[in-house]
Amino acid sequence: MVHFDTDYMAGALPEVIEALVKTNLEMTPGYGSDEYCAKAKDLIRNACGDPSLDVWFLVGGTQTNSTIIDAVLGHHEGVLSAETGHINVHESGAIEATGHKVLTLPSYQGKVSPKDVEDFIKNFYADDTYEHMVAPGMLYISFPSEYGTLYSKDELKELSRICHENGIKLFLDGARLGYGLAASDITLAEIAQLVDVFYIGGTKCGAMFGEAVVAKSGLLNHFLPLIKQHGALLAKGRLLGVQYQALFTDDLYFKATASAITLAMRLKEGFVKMGYKPFIDSPTNQQFFDLPNIVIDKLQSVATFEFWGPRGAESSRVRFVTSWATKSEDIDVLLGAL
Amino acid sequence: MVHFDTDYMAGALPEVIEALVKTNLEMTPGYGSDEYCAKAKDLIRNACGDPSLDVWFLVGGTQTNSTIIDAVLGHHEGVLSAETGHINVHESGAIEATGHKVLTLPSYQGKVSPKDVEDFIKNFYADDTYEHMVAPGMLYISFPSEYGTLYSKDELKELSRICHENGIKLFLDGARLGYGLAASDITLAEIAQLVDVFYIGGTKCGAMFGEAVVAKSGLLNHFLPLIKQHGALLAKGRLLGVQYQALFTDDLYFKATASAITLAMRLKEGFVKMGYKPFIDSPTNQQFFDLPNIVIDKLQSVATFEFWGPRGAESSRVRFVTSWATKSEDIDVLLGAL
Amino acid sequence: MVHFDTDYMAGALPEVIEALVKTNLEMTPGYGSDEYCAKAKDLIRNACGDPSLDVWFLVGGTQTNSTIIDAVLGHHEGVLSAETGHINVHESGAIEATGHKVLTLPSYQGKVSPKDVEDFIKNFYADDTYEHMVAPGMLYISFPSEYGTLYSKDELKELSRICHENGIKLFLDGARLGYGLAASDITLAEIAQLVDVFYIGGTKCGAMFGEAVVAKSGLLNHFLPLIKQHGALLAKGRLLGVQYQALFTDDLYFKATASAITLAMRLKEGFVKMGYKPFIDSPTNQQFFDLPNIVIDKLQSVATFEFWGPRGAESSRVRFVTSWATKSEDIDVLLGAL
Amino acid sequence: MVHFDTDYMAGALPEVIEALVKTNLEMTPGYGSDEYCAKAKDLIRNACGDPSLDVWFLVGGTQTNSTIIDAVLGHHEGVLSAETGHINVHESGAIEATGHKVLTLPSYQGKVSPKDVEDFIKNFYADDTYEHMVAPGMLYISFPSEYGTLYSKDELKELSRICHENGIKLFLDGARLGYGLAASDITLAEIAQLVDVFYIGGTKCGAMFGEAVVAKSGLLNHFLPLIKQHGALLAKGRLLGVQYQALFTDDLYFKATASAITLAMRLKEGFVKMGYKPFIDSPTNQQFFDLPNIVIDKLQSVATFEFWGPRGAESSRVRFVTSWATKSEDIDVLLGAL
Repeated sequence: MVHFDTDYMAGALPEVIEALVKTNLEMTPGYGSDEYCAKAKDLIRNACGDPSLDVWFLVGGTQTNSTIIDAVLGHHEGVLSAETGHINVHESGAIEATGHKVLTLPSYQGKVSPKDVEDFIKNFYADDTYEHMVAPGMLYISFPSEYGTLYSKDELKELSRICHENGIKLFLDGARLGYGLAASDITLAEIAQLVDVFYIGGTKCGAMFGEAVVAKSGLLNHFLPLIKQHGALLAKGRLLGVQYQALFTDDLYFKATASAITLAMRLKEGFVKMGYKPFIDSPTNQQFFDLPNIVIDKLQSVATFEFWGPRGAESSRVRFVTSWATKSEDIDVLLGAL
Repeated sequence: MVHFDTDYMAGALPEVIEALVKTNLEMTPGYGSDEYCAKAKDLIRNACGDPSLDVWFLVGGTQTNSTIIDAVLGHHEGVLSAETGHINVHESGAIEATGHKVLTLPSYQGKVSPKDVEDFIKNFYADDTYEHMVAPGMLYISFPSEYGTLYSKDELKELSRICHENGIKLFLDGARLGYGLAASDITLAEIAQLVDVFYIGGTKCGAMFGEAVVAKSGLLNHFLPLIKQHGALLAKGRLLGVQYQALFTDDLYFKATASAITLAMRLKEGFVKMGYKPFIDSPTNQQFFDLPNIVIDKLQSVATFEFWGPRGAESSRVRFVTSWATKSEDIDVLLGAL
Repeated sequence: MVHFDTDYMAGALPEVIEALVKTNLEMTPGYGSDEYCAKAKDLIRNACGDPSLDVWFLVGGTQTNSTIIDAVLGHHEGVLSAETGHINVHESGAIEATGHKVLTLPSYQGKVSPKDVEDFIKNFYADDTYEHMVAPGMLYISFPSEYGTLYSKDELKELSRICHENGIKLFLDGARLGYGLAASDITLAEIAQLVDVFYIGGTKCGAMFGEAVVAKSGLLNHFLPLIKQHGALLAKGRLLGVQYQALFTDDLYFKATASAITLAMRLKEGFVKMGYKPFIDSPTNQQFFDLPNIVIDKLQSVATFEFWGPRGAESSRVRFVTSWATKSEDIDVLLGAL
Repeated sequence: MVHFDTDYMAGALPEVIEALVKTNLEMTPGYGSDEYCAKAKDLIRNACGDPSLDVWFLVGGTQTNSTIIDAVLGHHEGVLSAETGHINVHESGAIEATGHKVLTLPSYQGKVSPKDVEDFIKNFYADDTYEHMVAPGMLYISFPSEYGTLYSKDELKELSRICHENGIKLFLDGARLGYGLAASDITLAEIAQLVDVFYIGGTKCGAMFGEAVVAKSGLLNHFLPLIKQHGALLAKGRLLGVQYQALFTDDLYFKATASAITLAMRLKEGFVKMGYKPFIDSPTNQQFFDLPNIVIDKLQSVATFEFWGPRGAESSRVRFVTSWATKSEDIDVLLGAL
């Protein structure tokens, strides 16, 4: 059986788990004040090409989203997001639990349109009653989006311009950042320059767990107590430093995620050759197809993957996800069954 | 100058302010534990035809909405509302500030459709990932809606059935309830029977201020500390009892709001006769028209009223609101200028 | 029967209710954007001797406390308070409901000691683990305190110095401010200069309801949406403007509260003459005595007042509160029964 | 250099990390829905002697405390805790951030007194103004306490009786539970019977990370969305199942923590033999001594450990912590330097 359900089904890259094993019985101080974290932060700052950036390590995506958003927004502010954004749909109300509204924008295959963002802000302040409404304080985007799509470099620049001209922070959810970078001409350094805060996803991109938050210097004031308050401060913080040190040594993070993109493209081409059309043309590690139920049934005899919505009468929408842990043979098995 | 901006521009009905003056120097215990509140609650229970109902007095609409919703919802639950609902648009994020998401449904001139409600609930529990989403715990409707429209008795019955079959509470925002009752064949007793909790708006319907919450017995457990925690417990609670006693004596509440409806209909007919069509056919005290800017300019020389959206190039949308304080002569002045 | 239970048993000063009656049928825009509020704010700024101050009107004390504290504190900060402070004891957790911890200091008859405040801050930052603790972001004091006591001018200056040297805001709860000013050599202008934000209590000091918040310019950014979010924005905001305009015309506020102090002193002297000693030597309108139960029983035949703690075997602690509504004859009746 | 700073300095027990390595490349579904979690939950229910218990896995202590407390308390309720309780002191306000007050009781070397708990509840409901105060909804205790002390079986039974007679939930923070069990005659099954909810700490007791929550059936309704909302749901949930399966196989959890207690007792005896008296007589893995500064300086040349408060003029308070990772030779080194 091969697995394409999602990209957090396996443990960690061999280099990552080896680093954890190797350092396992060392004794270091807690909460990220150790040398491994310091080293890993330097590697990340270096990869981002900006030694002034602040770097923090958290454990998972939802806690990272809610801690960052809560830290940046004023009490009267909410966060703009595509209506399909993870924070709006799949975090059990974590943002609202911190007291902030998610202000939704139309989703274009998971992305927001720069024009919609600019119009929202303009219309907001043009409304006489705007003080009775929740002010937009931040724009949340995901890269790749929940539908596998990517903003172009021009789109990112445009979003950055709109946010900064209007005094709004731009936050990029990088839970799958490695896969996005591998499928795009945008570099890590460019993202670090264009957005105010983002994170380099570890959980889905080769780490056992962990998310590395990167922020413009001084944006996340008093962030350590806020991480603690949100229950997101790992006692054995060095586990995160050890992992990110491994990931950012010899470009491991980039190579591992690039492999997943190569395999995702092979998978897509295999389906397209057989005449199946993706209903979203995703350049990243999530691939979406409408398939006849009879084909789905056959594939399920060799592979697991997710339905994207309810099973239809004749055909259904399904999603295949590759990851750093996907092997070339896994694609063979899937396409073979096709 | 005559005023149609909104229904909270004047103070209180003469009978209400006389009652406040008459009792002004009396000394009573605080927080609603006085005899005036006890008497007013009995009058309200009587008007609702159900002596088992719980009644509470709060000061304003936003605090009443957020206190009720927070009291009823579990931590994992959100509240369903039309996307135009007051709680979603015009309360500066008060619901989210208590930790709960507003789950939006399409708005049909301010109303939700029973089918949409039922579909939302069904689809929610059909989704494999529903535990990562915010569960619908309550349906919020406004009567009249923010667009002046009313649910029919059948619609209310249907919403009540759907909510109760699915274990969801039904909450009716009655900030303008008096105007809604005066324009509908639904009685206060029927509303009290069909919904789990609602309030009888005072601020907009003849009181100086105040909202009377009516709930099924036992629904709002520990509600007094919650009112206090939300900053909504008036120290001189008897001010609310005195006012509601006046409002529910000799049908004052119903007569005063009926007068506003009569005048609103005269206003509407006046415009219609002149060939202007309401863009929402509201049966209540809010009337909405598309008017040529030249007409608007003329009307503004004798009356104040609100634009409903931005001023257009040729014509614009405007709203006229009558209230218990509107006089027949005010309508004469307005229609005269037309 | 005469009443000494508390200072919010009666309605409003005759001048205040007359002003409400006189303006009752006027029509003004909502939410405090009217001329009465503008005029009242000017009168207050003038009385404070500082035209740069920001003034806002809210309805009651608990909502004012929680809205101000939430507006000023960062997410990682808490508010220092005497353990007897109203926000710590009698607001049903309103401060915590906004996400902030109340950091308690010892209470000396309702007051904090400047040394304790300074030590708390010093010890806090000397602790290696301070980032795992709640940082003090504000000091809350009440004037008069919940025990009727007052800070001296020197104490206030010292608290102001400590707070400002340590980057902490000083907030003065003035729910009974009028009574405090009448019993002290401190002026309103001095308070306005020494603290960052305070309020001029109306509910207990002659208004029907209302609290006037006074803040250093720019401290309470985006305060209108926050008032709205906290459910504390009165729709008919002019009711507050009308009342404060009356209170700050011809020194009404100061004369009315001074009368309560004169009567409280007569009351205290009456008890002292009869050999009863106050267990707190309060200079304001709350008076505290240990009395034999037999005396209490006799007094209760002519007057109402509160026990301060449980009834004892032989004697009990009781509190007598005067207000602007107390008449000289009321004191006669009470002392007569003694 | 040997390390006694705290018990979360090393990684994981060899058996635990081996299990993680062995299962590393397996692919399992997320969020704890895998077979490893199911198996581990069964092992824990078995060890607790009650198949009806609910078991959940979270990542760290602070998030576990705040998620449980928020899940159990009503909006109007707070949690009773010793003033030294971790939730009151060292979680950056995580409990208040969920809207709940920590109601403090005197601490007796880290423990609450049953009498104080009972008196608090009795006095609370005897107070006329209790509805303006935060109701006690839960008692939080830690076992061992933050000072290494343990409740006796009789004390636990008494606390259980008091809580349940008064309708209050009893929650035991077991971040160091293994060390407590190893030093006590109380069994895991007895704890599971006496308290409503507790957790079996992994992070400090041999796991790489993780806390296993054990609750009476049905207490933690809708707990999965709440874990998610609190950012405490590990995507690769099986990492927790794999670890707890290892810990609860062949009594690994109990043996590893027992070793720490044996070494802690050797450490204590070594100091006592040299004439130093513990200032708290802790039976568990935290040992507290007043030592002359000259001795401390000498020890610091071979070992790291924490000051417990500020360094004194002549002598200071220090804490030595053993763990599953402490070796017998480490004690030799420390005592040798003594």
